[in-house]
Amino acid sequence: MDLVTIDDIRTAAERIRDAVVRTPLLPCPWADPERPLWLKPESLQPIGAFKLRGAHNALAALDDKTRARGVVTYSSGNHAQAVAYAAREFGVPAHIVMPDVTPQVKVDNTRAYGAEVVLVPIGERESAAYELVEKLGAVLVPPFDHPDIIAGQGTIGLEIGTDLPDVELVLMPVSGGGLASGIGTAVKALCPNAAVFGVEPELAADAAESLRAGSLVDWPIERRARTIADGLRSQPSELTFAHLRSVLDGIVAVGEDEIRAAMAVLATKGRLVAEPSGAVPLAAYLNRADELPRGRTVVVVSGGNVERTLLADVLRRDS
Amino acid sequence: MDLVTIDDIRTAAERIRDAVVRTPLLPCPWADPERPLWLKPESLQPIGAFKLRGAHNALAALDDKTRARGVVTYSSGNHAQAVAYAAREFGVPAHIVMPDVTPQVKVDNTRAYGAEVVLVPIGERESAAYELVEKLGAVLVPPFDHPDIIAGQGTIGLEIGTDLPDVELVLMPVSGGGLASGIGTAVKALCPNAAVFGVEPELAADAAESLRAGSLVDWPIERRARTIADGLRSQPSELTFAHLRSVLDGIVAVGEDEIRAAMAVLATKGRLVAEPSGAVPLAAYLNRADELPRGRTVVVVSGGNVERTLLADVLRRDS
Repeated sequence: MDLVTIDDIRTAAERIRDAVVRTPLLPCPWADPERPLWLKPESLQPIGAFKLRGAHNALAALDDKTRARGVVTYSSGNHAQAVAYAAREFGVPAHIVMPDVTPQVKVDNTRAYGAEVVLVPIGERESAAYELVEKLGAVLVPPFDHPDIIAGQGTIGLEIGTDLPDVELVLMPVSGGGLASGIGTAVKALCPNAAVFGVEPELAADAAESLRAGSLVDWPIERRARTIADGLRSQPSELTFAHLRSVLDGIVAVGEDEIRAAMAVLATKGRLVAEPSGAVPLAAYLNRADELPRGRTVVVVSGGNVERTLLADVLRRDS
Repeated sequence: MDLVTIDDIRTAAERIRDAVVRTPLLPCPWADPERPLWLKPESLQPIGAFKLRGAHNALAALDDKTRARGVVTYSSGNHAQAVAYAAREFGVPAHIVMPDVTPQVKVDNTRAYGAEVVLVPIGERESAAYELVEKLGAVLVPPFDHPDIIAGQGTIGLEIGTDLPDVELVLMPVSGGGLASGIGTAVKALCPNAAVFGVEPELAADAAESLRAGSLVDWPIERRARTIADGLRSQPSELTFAHLRSVLDGIVAVGEDEIRAAMAVLATKGRLVAEPSGAVPLAAYLNRADELPRGRTVVVVSGGNVERTLLADVLRRDS
């Protein structure tokens, strides 16, 4: 299987340069002095999550004629908004298939970027998307299972390696695995001595089990859906799993209360609003020091799209 | 009176380059399309506010021998932490005079950066600071009334002008006036067609009254202290007032409920934690469109040091 290379990621970086925020590394004077910490706030992308990098790169990689026919995806999360936003930037139609149980606010946000939202029963998401692709001659932009998506997310690792060449540990969430595959590829190329660790919720730790088993293990969606980290309920594909096996030095899991507490730390000490999925890597930094290499650490805050009532609840809880 | 120049600000930018975060401009797809909006998140500086720029520049401008004797300031707010943090970076002692009614968390934060905190009755702050300066041969680093402080804060304007040369309006808070003086000087030099507007709380709108009067008007501290924006209770000095008269195109005022609502918008749509003072310019963008020029707008989010209970309260309020 062909894996994404650092050259693919460099190409992606050129393509997305004017479309995404070049996020800074934020030093954290409140962190453990023996493990200096920087946050990479991808929550500050225009759609509130890293997903814009992969989506924009995937659209940019299409030839003009193909792209003009429009793009299709199925997602109720950040990828939906990323594809809608990127399609608007290119001035092409976007069709987003969402389960008919999707919260109205997410439907509204996606429509606000000019996308056509198609609501279907949850079991028909993929088939409805493929029907649209056939009917419209449009292109499917999958959420993670594609080299252009992986290369786009990998630009985060390129920026980390450029801004902090002596980084010793990079922590990011693992779900479908596109983010970890891309970042890991870039960091290993630029900083071969740095360790790259994935982090999952304990309630959706399928990737860890798959890595231990050496092949993909299926966790039913009902099992993965228990975590509060709604962005981390997917499973790796064969493509992303091959990357994870190649680039990850390890993977750790965190509990639900640890995720909530990390959201509060990000808000109060990091001044960042993170969604539960975006706080998962910091939860590992704060609670799994004994399972991680020590040294200069970058934690990727992958997204910030959270219900305000949940954020308020998390802030009240430990105060 | 000699005003700070763009060359002073460029010199400051060189001095502070490795000590502060080069904050990005964050595009806001949720804003009024006729007034495209970018946020400049100074809340993401290591101490949670722009004050580090001025403090670091002031310390960097001292000769080594003078700086080694240590620095003194009086502040209970973000400037205290900025001086403490900058002094630690230079490895020199910092003595911070605080009123004995300062909340313990602010005392603790300042001490955490290694500063010596001296608690005195509130009326004795300045005299205690000058006594320390005499006794120790140390240097006083004032919160805004100094060219090096103004030049340091001005680096924000330099970055805005570099990143968005066709900006049409810049909005930032006005209190002691160091921030607005510096940003205004830089923006007027780089983008002469851009308008620069200050924003105050209605409950501390002394600078607006002074600008109307053409000379400094005193509002008693009890009057200014009514605003929730605890970082905006100072008044301009002769030095900063001369800058404000030179560089501001106007000044507007916002209400307390507008400030709270802007904090909620920053958290939910901007994914940024802002303190009340840091939300004041966005409150003007959202509620004072009729008093402001239209066009590409940058709003400076000056700080993010807020009590978690207040943040939680603001999030619950309109939800």
